[in-house]
Amino acid sequence: MEFLVDVRVSLPPEMAAEQRQQLLAAELKRGRELVAAGHIQGIWRIPGAVRNVGIWNARDATELHQLIASLPLFPWLAADVTALATHPLNA
Amino acid sequence: MEFLVDVRVSLPPEMAAEQRQQLLAAELKRGRELVAAGHIQGIWRIPGAVRNVGIWNARDATELHQLIASLPLFPWLAADVTALATHPLNA
Amino acid sequence: MEFLVDVRVSLPPEMAAEQRQQLLAAELKRGRELVAAGHIQGIWRIPGAVRNVGIWNARDATELHQLIASLPLFPWLAADVTALATHPLNA
Amino acid sequence: MEFLVDVRVSLPPEMAAEQRQQLLAAELKRGRELVAAGHIQGIWRIPGAVRNVGIWNARDATELHQLIASLPLFPWLAADVTALATHPLNA
Amino acid sequence: MEFLVDVRVSLPPEMAAEQRQQLLAAELKRGRELVAAGHIQGIWRIPGAVRNVGIWNARDATELHQLIASLPLFPWLAADVTALATHPLNA
Amino acid sequence: MEFLVDVRVSLPPEMAAEQRQQLLAAELKRGRELVAAGHIQGIWRIPGAVRNVGIWNARDATELHQLIASLPLFPWLAADVTALATHPLNA
Amino acid sequence: MEFLVDVRVSLPPEMAAEQRQQLLAAELKRGRELVAAGHIQGIWRIPGAVRNVGIWNARDATELHQLIASLPLFPWLAADVTALATHPLNA
Amino acid sequence: MEFLVDVRVSLPPEMAAEQRQQLLAAELKRGRELVAAGHIQGIWRIPGAVRNVGIWNARDATELHQLIASLPLFPWLAADVTALATHPLNA
Amino acid sequence: MEFLVDVRVSLPPEMAAEQRQQLLAAELKRGRELVAAGHIQGIWRIPGAVRNVGIWNARDATELHQLIASLPLFPWLAADVTALATHPLNA
Amino acid sequence: MEFLVDVRVSLPPEMAAEQRQQLLAAELKRGRELVAAGHIQGIWRIPGAVRNVGIWNARDATELHQLIASLPLFPWLAADVTALATHPLNA
Repeated sequence: MEFLVDVRVSLPPEMAAEQRQQLLAAELKRGRELVAAGHIQGIWRIPGAVRNVGIWNARDATELHQLIASLPLFPWLAADVTALATHPLNA
Repeated sequence: MEFLVDVRVSLPPEMAAEQRQQLLAAELKRGRELVAAGHIQGIWRIPGAVRNVGIWNARDATELHQLIASLPLFPWLAADVTALATHPLNA
Repeated sequence: MEFLVDVRVSLPPEMAAEQRQQLLAAELKRGRELVAAGHIQGIWRIPGAVRNVGIWNARDATELHQLIASLPLFPWLAADVTALATHPLNA
Repeated sequence: MEFLVDVRVSLPPEMAAEQRQQLLAAELKRGRELVAAGHIQGIWRIPGAVRNVGIWNARDATELHQLIASLPLFPWLAADVTALATHPLNA
Repeated sequence: MEFLVDVRVSLPPEMAAEQRQQLLAAELKRGRELVAAGHIQGIWRIPGAVRNVGIWNARDATELHQLIASLPLFPWLAADVTALATHPLNA
Repeated sequence: MEFLVDVRVSLPPEMAAEQRQQLLAAELKRGRELVAAGHIQGIWRIPGAVRNVGIWNARDATELHQLIASLPLFPWLAADVTALATHPLNA
Repeated sequence: MEFLVDVRVSLPPEMAAEQRQQLLAAELKRGRELVAAGHIQGIWRIPGAVRNVGIWNARDATELHQLIASLPLFPWLAADVTALATHPLNA
Repeated sequence: MEFLVDVRVSLPPEMAAEQRQQLLAAELKRGRELVAAGHIQGIWRIPGAVRNVGIWNARDATELHQLIASLPLFPWLAADVTALATHPLNA
Repeated sequence: MEFLVDVRVSLPPEMAAEQRQQLLAAELKRGRELVAAGHIQGIWRIPGAVRNVGIWNARDATELHQLIASLPLFPWLAADVTALATHPLNA
Repeated sequence: MEFLVDVRVSLPPEMAAEQRQQLLAAELKRGRELVAAGHIQGIWRIPGAVRNVGIWNARDATELHQLIASLPLFPWLAADVTALATHPLNA
């Protein structure tokens, strides 16, 4: 099933630079795994914020939650999930 | 997959009483079919409005949309859908 | 009486892992008690967040508040409560 | 059980004056019945609008919905219902 | 004059338990004084949150503010005030 | 007592010009009466809309409602009322 | 450039069925043209509403507006556009 | 003084095409006059809607309102005005 | 030019009482200067919160910003500014 | 491409004055570079807040994000970006 996932990250400005870099690197690494596994079909940066929207694919909402919760930035993010149905143009 | 579906119905107050009764009867009939087919697992009236919340079950969001669109009141309603994942209490 | 309870949990990211695990374990234990007692009829995870929606059952809103306030995570959560009436499909 | 009920009425400005007067008179009559029956414990006008807030009393949300739906202005109103629990000051 | 006062309290979860208990006890004590003085005519707990709604009575908004500001929890609360007019049912 | 009253007027665009002019003239006439009677202490146009904010004075919210409801445009307007208390600068 | 376009369609319920079918058919035809031209890279139905989200591609916002305005349903829709930047995962 | 003016136009879909064209032509003509007079310094279309944002210049808010109210589409639009101050970069 | 300025102050509850008193005293002193200079024409407390609304007067939005930024509480406040035009009642 | 960028800065009130001054000076310096490079065509202070709106120019949203992320205040700001299309007045 496909989902539109809108992710806003709020890292505290006073977080140590080193911790911030490690987290962002780990996040990118995990992201690549999710892309490779076909769970992230498309992902885009919303300009001006540490925020992205993506088209995710998972068996169901339960698997989707596990995938999002596996992101290193999970404790610092808010993810808004919209279930996607097939559009008549793709029926 | 399970979904929380929040349905608000806005029938124009000046709609003829007869048309209103026919629509509401057809809606109830269709509702019973969806309950019998296991697509509506639970449904409750939000007091004070022609509004309900329900736990729906469908193969995926595509089937869910077809089920909601099959409701006679579809042209007069707004349905807000939230995908539901399994909670640790039920894992 | 039945209530739709939408619970958002905000644990501070910098909380010590051990405290976090203890709290989540205690929360799960208390949740099981509430399910066993029939106070939680159904509960689902909203994917992407430490958030759940559930159908709770209590004598009235006063008992419902006591049940929610008994959750170990109560100081870190926001619960939005909607009273539920019987739907014509269940009348 | 007690509920805070916030009722906003939207009568179309172009409604015939006579129909408006009849509806408002019928609404007042029904309101008196609900007060006499103890279902409306307190009710106040929100200044500047055809809107009121009231403390209603009903067995449960199901009865509350029937009471609100019995109002002649029901097709033209939006009612927002909040379940009320006993406050420690009244425990 | 009567006012609907909606009070949300946000005590930091990490506040020392002792300080929390003292504050809540002082708040209850002050609340009783306001009830006894007729300034709080009715007050209810909104289930699921440290939040209440009440019908307050004061000479005017100036006195109302002083009463609310006298609450020990004032630095930790947000109060939303709605002026109340007499409803036709009570005219 | 003083109130901040925010009034938004929505006249249907297709209203006959003559009816519109009559209503606006009657509204202005009534407004002058309210200014003369001291009920409107100050009033300003919010640029870009048929909307105004004003500082109104009335015995209480009940009288304020009657004053607002006496406006010819009352059926076409939405008024948002905020009770005003004395500021320390004026104490 | 890529854009996330969220389109909500509000066809009046009392619109003649024939006009509705013609419009929806014309919309689907125009949609196929936009997909074929590469302007719509992906499009999904939001379940429960006549609403879709899509990833659109256009030279810039000016061309994007012309494309959206060319939809037969344009007078009945509200489109919310978010500019999309390349995500680090695709850099 | 400079103002950011966000204008949303809602022409009824069923408006006769001829009336729509006349209105839009008159609006464009008036717009050119306002640009020529220096009252509109910059104006852009928000893609996907009949909506624009512009930097307007007027002696004060009173003149700004008269300029906006002079637009032929005024009865069908909602304009949101934000006063603009000089930024340190331009001080 | 006149502006409606809505100011919400959020002083951290755990701020030392002495610092709080000094800030509030300095704020009151600065407020008196602004009243004396005619920059604050009227100001009222919104009951229940450390919040006020006022009618301010400044040459333009640039001067208004400097006046608001000169308030000792500026780092702890959020000010919402609405430009005010002359109302027909005062034309 | 042109964008409307609405930037809200939230520097913690308790930030050391020296750090605050350095950050604001660096921000101004970077701002001048962006103006000189033609990336900021116009920028205004929203009175009453550390907030600005600007008309930015960038190849696309990807470059725009890099420009905004290059601001020294980036960790403390929230930027809301709206893509701008050419208005008929400028076509």
